[in-house]
Amino acid sequence: MSDESLLVKDLGEQRLLEKLQRFCPQDVVGDDGAILETTPDKSLVVTTDVLVDGVHFSDRTTTAFDVGWRAAAANLSDLAAMGANPLGITVGLSLPGEQAVDWVEELYRGMDCCLKVYQTPIVGGDICRSTVSSIAITAFGEVAPARAICRSQAKPGDAIVITGLHGLSRGGLELLLDPKKGSSLKLPERKRLIKAHQRPQPRLNILQHLTQIPEHIAIAGMDSSDGLADAIVQICRNSGVGAAINRESLLIFPGLVKLAGAETAWEWLLYGGEDFELVLCFPWDFASALVRDLGSEAAIIGEVTVNPEIEVTNTKNLDTKQILNINKGFQHF
Amino acid sequence: MSDESLLVKDLGEQRLLEKLQRFCPQDVVGDDGAILETTPDKSLVVTTDVLVDGVHFSDRTTTAFDVGWRAAAANLSDLAAMGANPLGITVGLSLPGEQAVDWVEELYRGMDCCLKVYQTPIVGGDICRSTVSSIAITAFGEVAPARAICRSQAKPGDAIVITGLHGLSRGGLELLLDPKKGSSLKLPERKRLIKAHQRPQPRLNILQHLTQIPEHIAIAGMDSSDGLADAIVQICRNSGVGAAINRESLLIFPGLVKLAGAETAWEWLLYGGEDFELVLCFPWDFASALVRDLGSEAAIIGEVTVNPEIEVTNTKNLDTKQILNINKGFQHF
Repeated sequence: MSDESLLVKDLGEQRLLEKLQRFCPQDVVGDDGAILETTPDKSLVVTTDVLVDGVHFSDRTTTAFDVGWRAAAANLSDLAAMGANPLGITVGLSLPGEQAVDWVEELYRGMDCCLKVYQTPIVGGDICRSTVSSIAITAFGEVAPARAICRSQAKPGDAIVITGLHGLSRGGLELLLDPKKGSSLKLPERKRLIKAHQRPQPRLNILQHLTQIPEHIAIAGMDSSDGLADAIVQICRNSGVGAAINRESLLIFPGLVKLAGAETAWEWLLYGGEDFELVLCFPWDFASALVRDLGSEAAIIGEVTVNPEIEVTNTKNLDTKQILNINKGFQHF
Repeated sequence: MSDESLLVKDLGEQRLLEKLQRFCPQDVVGDDGAILETTPDKSLVVTTDVLVDGVHFSDRTTTAFDVGWRAAAANLSDLAAMGANPLGITVGLSLPGEQAVDWVEELYRGMDCCLKVYQTPIVGGDICRSTVSSIAITAFGEVAPARAICRSQAKPGDAIVITGLHGLSRGGLELLLDPKKGSSLKLPERKRLIKAHQRPQPRLNILQHLTQIPEHIAIAGMDSSDGLADAIVQICRNSGVGAAINRESLLIFPGLVKLAGAETAWEWLLYGGEDFELVLCFPWDFASALVRDLGSEAAIIGEVTVNPEIEVTNTKNLDTKQILNINKGFQHF
């Protein structure tokens, strides 16, 4: 096949991204957001996301309000994952003429509601006609240069911290797709799963806790929007390290097991995605303090290793060792 | 019609924007970009644009390279119109799987080529699948708070300056749509018109000249991307003033008259759009100095008046007085 006839779908998202990253400065791409040093004591962090009707959301599982909430939350989560406090977002809307105005207003209400919690304004945007509804959000925030969280900064010996449970958003989606499922779930369990999917909370509240870590200690990390396993793999790959994960430290929300069985619940925990927790690597003593501050759902799940493999080990049954290896994330094409 | 069944196309772009602006802070919307005060001596300026295949560009008149160039130029022009020096842009791409990879690379090459002139990096982005190609660009820059250019700052007695000729981009489009037209044009004229359309230059070079104006003197202005008449009307409306425009000071590029006749050339000059010049209002002595610096195509075209009407007068023939009144800009729905 000649290069001229190569289509986007032939190449796939990862390889297309690689081609296009040639046009970007090497040092600013690859994290949840880009860091631009504007003044000596503050860096600007920028992140952008595009959501398309029928690909990222559908009327079947998501109201316009929730599409807006989730879009805002995903972008704020990217800022949190960089250690940045939000300054504002811009919204680029493409809309078919046949779209209901009510839907558009609900979308904005959802964004606004999520953003208000974090005092983040919608500062601008653009609207244009298209054949399909899509939402392009760019969020920007600021961080002290020494406090920026990057994927490439994990060091052997660092503790690996997660800020909350995983797999819940995937469980919530399952309930929304088929409400008849999960009849053995208690109402609060059902509500929690659905809320995890519809109204995820960006972990901006973590940032205040991280101020207690001295500035000369690097914090590595990213959010778990593409799944916990993906986050661990990305951090290790970008830092040139591996990880020893302790399976017992990875708590499974009981409702997930009731809904889908232990094996599927474990898959969802590792690969479900969209939980928008943070996965952070830094020295053990500070990690213990953070987990203590955050409460019982946060956990130290393992340690960064020199050996570049990522092993998930059950200390009671060493034969169940699992090697995580995700060559490709979610492919959009 | 009940509110619930109201469609985007029933409402139109302006009224939809008005509805959605309720969700934005009043003081940051309405200009070419939003201004966010981040530190006492620097403000962040953000602007966003969405371009959709079949609406904003078409393979018939525009190569992928030129789509990229124009998209980058339009966003840099919005920064220039706010007085801001660019820091970077993000690019959100929606692509059908059937899109040629070559097209996407050419798009990036075009953006990169335009941005390089102004040392502006592409710092991030997102790619996703869609049924239609679209490009959402967010550009951000910085400006000293006192040097921010806003639409609302024009004062009676200010000179009105344009930084270059108008109508050329519209003329270039005409030649691209029908290359048989304009047979009486000289080759350099033809080339200049087509270049004005395909490769517009954002007027970031103006900013260095504006540093000579003392900081206590406000500069009002915007770019002429939606047409010269639109820019004058927007500035006057936002500042609660009017304007007396001197028709003879508005030079018409000779090739435009050859291409379309004097009357149409005049229409294109006022309403053609996409020339990406700046329309600026500030005191006469500084305006004269700027026009002297910029050379013969820049001009003082009139004066801001207390009377809120916008009159275009021919000093040699006072009967030809024209009143500009644009109730609505370009409607996307």
